[in-house]
Amino acid sequence: MDVEKVFHMKGGVGDTSYFNNSSVQKSVAEKMKDITLDAIEQMYVTLRPRNLGIADLGCSSGSNALLYIKRMVGTVEKAAQSVQQAAPEFRVCLNDLPTNDFNTVFQALPDLYQELKKGRNNDAPSVYVAAYPGNFYGRLFPENSLHFVYSFSSLHWLSRVPPGIYDEQGMLLNRKSIYITKNSPTEVCEAYAKQFRQDFSLFLKCRSEEVVTGGRMVLVLTGRSSPDFYCKDNIFAWELLYQSFNILVSKGKVEEEKVDSYDVHYYGPSREEIEDEVRTEGSFKLDRVEMLKKETDCTSSGAAIAKTVRAVQESMLSHHFGEAMLDELFDEYGTLLDREMAKEAVTFIDIALVLTRL
Amino acid sequence: MDVEKVFHMKGGVGDTSYFNNSSVQKSVAEKMKDITLDAIEQMYVTLRPRNLGIADLGCSSGSNALLYIKRMVGTVEKAAQSVQQAAPEFRVCLNDLPTNDFNTVFQALPDLYQELKKGRNNDAPSVYVAAYPGNFYGRLFPENSLHFVYSFSSLHWLSRVPPGIYDEQGMLLNRKSIYITKNSPTEVCEAYAKQFRQDFSLFLKCRSEEVVTGGRMVLVLTGRSSPDFYCKDNIFAWELLYQSFNILVSKGKVEEEKVDSYDVHYYGPSREEIEDEVRTEGSFKLDRVEMLKKETDCTSSGAAIAKTVRAVQESMLSHHFGEAMLDELFDEYGTLLDREMAKEAVTFIDIALVLTRL
Repeated sequence: MDVEKVFHMKGGVGDTSYFNNSSVQKSVAEKMKDITLDAIEQMYVTLRPRNLGIADLGCSSGSNALLYIKRMVGTVEKAAQSVQQAAPEFRVCLNDLPTNDFNTVFQALPDLYQELKKGRNNDAPSVYVAAYPGNFYGRLFPENSLHFVYSFSSLHWLSRVPPGIYDEQGMLLNRKSIYITKNSPTEVCEAYAKQFRQDFSLFLKCRSEEVVTGGRMVLVLTGRSSPDFYCKDNIFAWELLYQSFNILVSKGKVEEEKVDSYDVHYYGPSREEIEDEVRTEGSFKLDRVEMLKKETDCTSSGAAIAKTVRAVQESMLSHHFGEAMLDELFDEYGTLLDREMAKEAVTFIDIALVLTRL
Repeated sequence: MDVEKVFHMKGGVGDTSYFNNSSVQKSVAEKMKDITLDAIEQMYVTLRPRNLGIADLGCSSGSNALLYIKRMVGTVEKAAQSVQQAAPEFRVCLNDLPTNDFNTVFQALPDLYQELKKGRNNDAPSVYVAAYPGNFYGRLFPENSLHFVYSFSSLHWLSRVPPGIYDEQGMLLNRKSIYITKNSPTEVCEAYAKQFRQDFSLFLKCRSEEVVTGGRMVLVLTGRSSPDFYCKDNIFAWELLYQSFNILVSKGKVEEEKVDSYDVHYYGPSREEIEDEVRTEGSFKLDRVEMLKKETDCTSSGAAIAKTVRAVQESMLSHHFGEAMLDELFDEYGTLLDREMAKEAVTFIDIALVLTRL
């Protein structure tokens, strides 16, 4: 399956859209507020560009996409004032795959521009928002054109399902799962880890050509709490999704072979893997790493988590399985999640990085 | 009616979409090929930018949007070779209103990038395509960031229906029409002409801040063949559309008051009006003006022209009248067009300009 041509957050503003089911991603973005605004401020006072290039990589189609623009502009304007400099022009580049629903993002733009002007006369900030559709595991922007890059909840998506999960005869090594499980052979774990290293390293290399020396990146991605591939926070969500598939197989709603041949293009790296890759690639200095931990509690709803996963996974699933089984699949998934969370709290790990271009 | 929030070419790729009904606009673009490529070549050999900024203003959602990119890149690459210069990086900025269906344009991007690489190794051109949604009667891009601007079949759209078509008591001066007709009072014609002057002048002023000295613009818009407001090529297409409305009124399908209160945000300027405005605004030198004339013949189909007008007008019409009457309206319109073209050939005028930033 060609991830670049299929994968996208569910578009539009309907009940199952990413727009209406991205509160998890939004809360990640909210947690990152101080770290992000600190980073852009530090970059600004050091470099003081007159024309400031910002990129949001993996902007998706939710309300998150425009959330940060006003904040960043405000932060930089204040910083400019404190160093007695005129505020720069802002070029804001929104990026996601070409299949992303950019139309929904664009329809909110006039209101954003209106808000940026509110209560201002001739001193309203000059902000130019553009979309650069493309794969961030490749070049997206001209050389040295960016000062600040951020990417929230995107870099755990691999460029492809790792080819290493097939053996030399082309046989799948993890038939009875859709990702790493507690029963996966080491080869499967290694294949996922290798694909992540390749992708993340390519990401850093491409950005190193686009980001000026002294430019900053703030990256947040889902990860795992320990180097152990099999730790629960890495595997449980996909294991439950696989179990939901199995329920549909047992009801004769989905063919077993179809499930066996499905695998996700996802990897939850450990902190150590990320740090290693940044060091090996060598273009960026790692200023800061934070583990963001979220535990479910008695208010957590399986149905809500299922909707979030659906908005993110629907494009890939309906390409492979068709659309007919989606409602039932995610009903089962919600039920399994509720059962699991009733037994014990479930942990989600995000890893946040601040990097400076050397 | 807020043009900026309503007006857009009919999106998607369906039967009535702009994508499938923009052959007229495509033929305009084709006629402009030599003029456009000459202009970008001349600009390039004079300025030799290392990072070349191009903007397409009013790119719409048809296949026209990406048509020129490959050609322009090829022309500049050849010109760079002839002056023994490395080819520049290309920033291509696609612009239209935020309601435009950019998603359809973006879905064709991977194929464009593929084509640009075809038969090339490390010497494939660096092309970065972005969308800048916004109103071109306002600033869209950072200062001095563009070297070449083109706009095909867009600048005849005004920023609003001219307020001058109302008298001091707020009464409409052209109730029995939707644009200038042979019976329109002079005030109505003057109101349209004034709105065009304001809009076009603002367009030039905004672009003058964005285009570097020596940068070029190629603009093509629908116009009229003589200074006479009432000349047939200016008014006949809208007059027939008004007659089509009247047929629906007589059948009780549309309320007369609804039609009386509808007016288009369109103006077909004369060559002289355009030349005057360029001179008055003063930022650009007019290198070239050409009148492009297209006459209908026995192969012309009213239904096809009606579909073209529908793809362009549907957003405004359905906002004002609702969608229910559209099929019948454009059936009548096609029939009237056929009848008119059977009597005598009908002429369409486009005016092409090449401008250099002083």
